[in-house]
This record gives sequence, C-alpha cells and structure tokens, in this order.
Amino acid sequence: MNIDGKAWRSIWVEKGGRSVGVIDQTKLPHSFETISIRSCNDAVRSIRQMVVRGAPLIGVTGAYGLMLALQKESSDSALKMAFDQLIETRPTAINLRWALKRVLDRVKPLPPSERSIAARQEADLIAEEDVAMCQSIGNHGLELLKVLAERRPKACQRKPLNLLTHCNAGWLATVDWGTALSPIYKANRSGLDVHVWVDETRPRNQGASLTAFELEREGIPHTLIVDNAGGHLMQHGDVDAVIVGSDRVTRRGDVCNKIGTYLKALAAQDNGVPFYVAMPYSTIDWSISDGLDEVPIERRSGLEVTQVYGLISQASREPLISSVQISPTSCESFNPAFDITPAKLVTSFITERGVTPATEEGLKRLYK
Amino acid sequence: MNIDGKAWRSIWVEKGGRSVGVIDQTKLPHSFETISIRSCNDAVRSIRQMVVRGAPLIGVTGAYGLMLALQKESSDSALKMAFDQLIETRPTAINLRWALKRVLDRVKPLPPSERSIAARQEADLIAEEDVAMCQSIGNHGLELLKVLAERRPKACQRKPLNLLTHCNAGWLATVDWGTALSPIYKANRSGLDVHVWVDETRPRNQGASLTAFELEREGIPHTLIVDNAGGHLMQHGDVDAVIVGSDRVTRRGDVCNKIGTYLKALAAQDNGVPFYVAMPYSTIDWSISDGLDEVPIERRSGLEVTQVYGLISQASREPLISSVQISPTSCESFNPAFDITPAKLVTSFITERGVTPATEEGLKRLYK
Repeated sequence: MNIDGKAWRSIWVEKGGRSVGVIDQTKLPHSFETISIRSCNDAVRSIRQMVVRGAPLIGVTGAYGLMLALQKESSDSALKMAFDQLIETRPTAINLRWALKRVLDRVKPLPPSERSIAARQEADLIAEEDVAMCQSIGNHGLELLKVLAERRPKACQRKPLNLLTHCNAGWLATVDWGTALSPIYKANRSGLDVHVWVDETRPRNQGASLTAFELEREGIPHTLIVDNAGGHLMQHGDVDAVIVGSDRVTRRGDVCNKIGTYLKALAAQDNGVPFYVAMPYSTIDWSISDGLDEVPIERRSGLEVTQVYGLISQASREPLISSVQISPTSCESFNPAFDITPAKLVTSFITERGVTPATEEGLKRLYK
Repeated sequence: MNIDGKAWRSIWVEKGGRSVGVIDQTKLPHSFETISIRSCNDAVRSIRQMVVRGAPLIGVTGAYGLMLALQKESSDSALKMAFDQLIETRPTAINLRWALKRVLDRVKPLPPSERSIAARQEADLIAEEDVAMCQSIGNHGLELLKVLAERRPKACQRKPLNLLTHCNAGWLATVDWGTALSPIYKANRSGLDVHVWVDETRPRNQGASLTAFELEREGIPHTLIVDNAGGHLMQHGDVDAVIVGSDRVTRRGDVCNKIGTYLKALAAQDNGVPFYVAMPYSTIDWSISDGLDEVPIERRSGLEVTQVYGLISQASREPLISSVQISPTSCESFNPAFDITPAKLVTSFITERGVTPATEEGLKRLYK
C-alpha cells in the first residue's frame, strides 16, 4: 500500500536474497524505520520483539528466516534447529507453522546444496500468494460491504458505512492489503463512503499505532476509540459491521484473535450487528475443533500492561519514544495475548475463496 | 481506609469549615498529595479536572462547594448561581444533583445569614451518611460473597474467590469504604480468601491507578489486566463474580457506569458469572426508566484517548508524571465516558438496605 505516494510492502528481499527488509513496527506511528534481517537469529528476534507481527506476516518472515538459516548451513540438523527455533517464537498464530512446514516440505527431499535456493523460491511464493489472497479477501469483502450499505434504511444511506475493527489486520499484518482492512481499502477505492472505528487494542495498542497509521496514509476516515467504547457505539446504532482478522480458526469455526475480540463479538450479537472474520486458508487449523480447549494462548510480559509506550512531547528534534508506568510500580499483572470467539458469534468468514458461514460445513464447502 | 497505617477519608473539612481537603486523585498512584478547596470555584475545578471523581464523592464535594459559596455570599441569586455552576461540572452521575438539591432544599427557606452554617451541617450529614451507607453495602455484600465462596465446587474451595471490578468504586470514589470495593474490604478483613482482577479502565486508567493503589495499601491480593482480558478470564472459570459501582441507576434497573462496563456484563452473562452492582440509594434516578434513551452520556476530550498519563522512569528524585501520545498526532478520537448495562444483565444490586434484583419491583421493595 502507499505511504506518501510510494508503494510499500511490509517485507521484501534485499541484496539478492542475502537479507530481508521489514518495517520496524515497534516504532510506528511515530517513526518510520526499516530493518534488515540478515540471519535466522535476526528473524527470531524480529518476531519475538514484534518488529513484525500479524499472523500472515509472521508466517512469511518465518519462511525467509528458514532461507537465511539454510544459506549459512543447509544440513538436516541445521534445518531442524532453525525450524524449531522459529516455530517457538509465537505459539498462537497457526500461519507460522503452516509457512515453516511448507518450506520444510519443499527443501527436505533436496540435497543440502540446493536447499537455500528452493527455500527462497518457496518463501517468495508464500509472500506472493499472501498478496493475492489478501486482494481476493478484499474483493469478496467489498461485495459484502456494498450489500450492507444498500440494505440500510433510506435515512441512513447518506451516512458513511461505519465499520469497527480490533487490533491491526491491515497490510502491516500481512505482506500487502491486509485481511480485515482489505475490504475497507477496496471499498474506499471503489467510492463507497466508509468510516472506521479503530479500537486502540490494549495492551500493545496496535489499533492506535498501526491501524490508525495505515488508514491515515490511505486517506480513509477513521476515529480512534478505547476498547471499552465499542459496545456503547453498537447500542446506539453507530456500527454497521465489525471486521477483524484471526490468528487461528478451528475446523468448526471458533476464532482465536487478539485479546478483547470476544467482547466485541458479544456486543455485536447483542445489538444485531454483523461480525465478520477475514482470513486466508492458512489461518485454518483443521486439526482442532474446540477453540477454548485446544488453542494455546500466548501469555506475554505483564510489563505490556503496566507500561504504555508512546511519543513524549519534547523540544528536541528527534521523536522520543518512551514508556510511562500507569500502575503502582509493584503491581502484579496478567497478560493473555489472545482470546477465543466461539463460532456461534461469527456471522461469516470472508476468505480468498468467498464468504462462508462460521461452521465446519461452511469451511469445508470452500476448502474441499 | 488506611494508607501506611494512617486512617484517611477522601474528603474532610479543614480550618473550621473555611476549606475542604481532598486527595489529588490525578496524581495517584505515583504521588500522594492533598489539595485545599477554598471556594466554590475550586470545587468546580476539582470536579471538572477529576481531582475528585466517583459519583458519591462528587456529590459530597458539590455539597461542600455550596457551603463555600454561601460563606462568601448567601443571597438567593448567589445560591442559584453556585448550584448551577456545580451541577454543570459532570452531567452523568445523579448523586451530584441529589446532594446539591439536598443542601439547596435545606438552606433555601432560611434567612441568608443562617445558610452557610446549615449548608455545612447538611454537607457533613451527607458525608457521614455516605460512610454509613458504604459500610452497610459492604456488610450486605460480604454475606453474598460468603455464600458465593461456599457454593463453589469442593475442588475450587481452596482457591481464592476471584472477583473482577471495573474502574474505581472504592473509598476514593466515596468518602470511605467505597461501593463495589466495600464488600471486598469486609471480606478480606473477615478472613475470606479473595483475589481481585483489576480492569485498567481506559481511557483514564482509574483501575490501574486508583483501584490498584487502594488494594495494595489494604494488602488485598490483586492483579491488573487490560480491559480486553476479562472475557477470556470468565471463559476459563477464573472469575467467580463481577462487582462494579454505578453513576446512575434507572427506576427499572438499567445501570450507567464507566465505559466498558456493558462489555463485562455481556461476558458475565455468556459465562454464567454473577454480575453485581453496588450502590447507595442516591444513585437511583426514579425519574427515568430507559437507561439507553434517558441518561445523558458525558463526552470527554479525545486527548484522554490519544494520550496516556503515567510515571516516566528517570534519574531525578521527584516522580515525573507525563503523557505519551499513542496514536498518530493528527488522529481523531471519540471519548464517551459511560455506557449503559441493561437491567437484564445485572444479577443483583447490593445496596445499603440489602441485596435486591435489578427490577423496578426489586428497587421499590427496598425503597418504598
């Protein structure tokens, strides 16, 4: 997508494949900096420290991480070690395992000398497919939004279509376009009058920092709200639909996504607001059914709860990003990073193959 | 309640009634400072800037504000002007109107020369009654919590009773004891093993700053969580009950409280977790029925959303409280301060007269 008129992706190959460039997402929206990932260790650190984040982008970064590992040493044991190291970085999103497995399956049967080139090809393919899938999610979602906009009562037709999103499932969470935001980009570019309520998404504020940044650069009207406010807006008819991404969807349609998604789904149901989950097929974990019991929920540092990062206003020229402590300094905190929205609260999935109900039958119909 | 072994209230009369002392709640938990309110204008500023907050404490501060106004000038017109100035500070909580009206009704029939002394008596009475009511709420709530603790399955009896609260409805929100936290204080002092999940309560973080501060000083085990996490905890059986306060309860039992309360009530219902609202009778607005349509919801500055206050770690000795900007600097934001939890989501009210269902009949049975 565009930043100040220049087309960007969230990840790209540099120096003939000797390194991979990414945007340092921990610095956004205050500072736009890129980083070169030069080794598997760099890839591990980037995922762990959330320089890159978002289930699809983590998957692609993992795939390139394997490529970089194989450039250095391409034996079976080195391959296994890199795979294990990368897969342990984030436990919840399934796309990482899916992408790593894809590269592994591609290179494993090859002689070591051919592995790094094949890994590069597979990682490139995963990245390009991700862009195509996100575009397709956008196109299917656009049709849905058009119908939603038209079906509103006449009196509401002059208002923008109000969409609420949680966390960041935009182009920064994928390679390009995004999942939840892709239909919104397509809608805006096609002339549909849209407005986005942006959940700040505590504790890491990916809504306030990343989604707000993306929408601003694309020129899409949006308003930041605290995570607490979405229910109130729905009660007053100010939300026409909720669209979120996902880190893992079970076979029967339970949705694992950023902590707090479940609360918005409950409010959507209570107020008759459609709740859509946009995702590519790599997000589906066919091996599990019950989201609550079977998806491992990452617990992150409590410091993400007690300390908030942002820009300190100051006189000097360089932007200064710092944290402030919001609680007593000795305060205990607990920080589960994801929650499960049961399938019954999901109106439909928006996938690269079309829109489908959140049921096992619905998913199987698309992915036979 | 106690701070480091010394008993405190949130508001007290100083200098024979020429001023009123309060704790500057905007500085907590990082710095404990008191402020003297010396005039009606001081009282207005203190309420507006949230030096004092919490529906019952706002009411008492308003009552003393009228006293200070009458000390300066006690004519009918001065009385009316002070009343109007104070009532406009915060539109949502009903306790302010109730307390101001009580002082007004008491002093209006009197000759101007007797008004300020009578106002002092009435304000003192309101404050003392508030303490007594909060104590009584605590006693009734304690009985409820004892039953809850005993009714848990045997396997859970060794775990602490896990309570979740939103915002701050502790002694800092009243004169002493609090509403939602009063039963928790009583439970802890009576030896019941309790643990409190503290919602941080964006945008102003009264949970992270005030509730965590109160519980720490009283030595009650607690854990800070982001507002997004409560639903996840309830899904996993880690919350035995939710207890919150209220800024206004309608005749039929709809509850206006800090933004985000509604989302917790939905999650409680979805997971079979009891949802209690603790409040004195001054919180009931008998004049209205439908919370969604009839309670004015205060909209506060969007800067509360885009900027987060806290303690900056630094070398100097004095604690430095500053804000950080979490969004792009030009980002629009919307900041409704309260929401409505429909009566159907409330298990019971805990009042100074006992526990009652959230219905018109339930409320009328207590307050004939």
